[in-house]
Amino acid sequence: MMNNPTSMSNPTASYIIIGDEILSGRTADKNLNFIANQLVTLGIDLIEVRVVRDVESEIIQAINELRSKFDYVFTSGGIGPTHDDITAESVAKAFEVELIQHPIAKKILYSYYQKKNIPLNEAKIKMSYVPEGADLIDNTISAAPGFKMENVFVMAGIPKIMQQMFFALKPLLNCGKEILSEDITIHMVESEIAEIMKIIQEKFKDVTIGSYPFVIEGENNNKKFGTNIVIRSQEQDKITKVKNLIETEVNKLINQ
Amino acid sequence: MMNNPTSMSNPTASYIIIGDEILSGRTADKNLNFIANQLVTLGIDLIEVRVVRDVESEIIQAINELRSKFDYVFTSGGIGPTHDDITAESVAKAFEVELIQHPIAKKILYSYYQKKNIPLNEAKIKMSYVPEGADLIDNTISAAPGFKMENVFVMAGIPKIMQQMFFALKPLLNCGKEILSEDITIHMVESEIAEIMKIIQEKFKDVTIGSYPFVIEGENNNKKFGTNIVIRSQEQDKITKVKNLIETEVNKLINQ
Repeated sequence: MMNNPTSMSNPTASYIIIGDEILSGRTADKNLNFIANQLVTLGIDLIEVRVVRDVESEIIQAINELRSKFDYVFTSGGIGPTHDDITAESVAKAFEVELIQHPIAKKILYSYYQKKNIPLNEAKIKMSYVPEGADLIDNTISAAPGFKMENVFVMAGIPKIMQQMFFALKPLLNCGKEILSEDITIHMVESEIAEIMKIIQEKFKDVTIGSYPFVIEGENNNKKFGTNIVIRSQEQDKITKVKNLIETEVNKLINQ
Repeated sequence: MMNNPTSMSNPTASYIIIGDEILSGRTADKNLNFIANQLVTLGIDLIEVRVVRDVESEIIQAINELRSKFDYVFTSGGIGPTHDDITAESVAKAFEVELIQHPIAKKILYSYYQKKNIPLNEAKIKMSYVPEGADLIDNTISAAPGFKMENVFVMAGIPKIMQQMFFALKPLLNCGKEILSEDITIHMVESEIAEIMKIIQEKFKDVTIGSYPFVIEGENNNKKFGTNIVIRSQEQDKITKVKNLIETEVNKLINQ
């Protein structure tokens, strides 16, 4: 069992994707990979992701389980104006506080729609409500803000808006030490190099060596198998050392 | 709060993606959307998805929490030959059984590698081990099988192989009634139609009306906002009825 010892001291995070559309297959998620890549560069370890439905009890449970377990919880989805947007209300219930109209959110929405000459309605006003005690996260694209409630960051689900909100909240995060990584592509099946990897992993316990097999369809329905090795550590010199060692050992195998 | 009443009688499922590579951002998941779409057509409701690390305790916890909660648990990732492939062992521990060599898996692997004239090694033999009591799931691509342990279906992480394994295990699933769906694309912002949607949703409690805003970058950095409405139900006539009603109401709005 690996404990990912390379990043023991980094802040930890989880990410909750809220939305029936992901679970029904209607929409392919585009946010997880963005969040994952962002957090790596910030030295924040993404430990768990959940996708839950637009169902209040399920959102509340996920929020409460994860916010006590990890330094940060990010969510996306369900903060729009429609009946199925219940994230803000659910987060308020998770924290056992009221859902209140945020004065700044109200101002932002009023002025945004005034400029566009669009009258406000109940649905638009709904987007100015956040859990009591929450701070806003700017939305420079469509005005309706996200919010931060203690260690929980609530963002929109539309990828463009989510990304912009993430950049807006980034300065609020305590960063760790970035986990660096290097890849080696080996044109051998995983099982041929598994023994070498295992020995090297046991020797270098403070790097993480991941092994990711791949299949390429060749001519005449011929499949080619290969393996990507990913070496991860906070320290470049350790990565280089392990990489050189793996390459030497694999070359020995090839030349056997 | 919606309870997704359209599918109350359908079997339920959850899906666990096992792999550091997804959480580190190295690999963008391609499996969730496939599984979600497959399950919809089978009338099995996907209720929750988790992504966890290649860490034994985390895999065990996810398996045990979800297998008692849902009719089916699907997993992908971590059943290969390398040191970071710990899914089979973790599932065995979750069920408190031994990890044993499955006689048929052993035969499959022996004959697969014999045909290819590749000697077996410890890493390859590792892939014939499954929790005691598990049944195999065929792998027609690279031989090493997945397995079914009670209501938990363990598949490979490589999309091609995962998909093939899913087709192989499909006949073992109890199906429900397919959730049908139809979309309406509306070129208005969500907040303009939110009130209508809310009223219609309250009136038709046995359909699910989802509202998914989108942004399109137009000329001169001009953003165009729109909304996709998705109507879901097990009964086509209800979908048609709600769809017509929404279209009528939206047209009224447009012509106001």
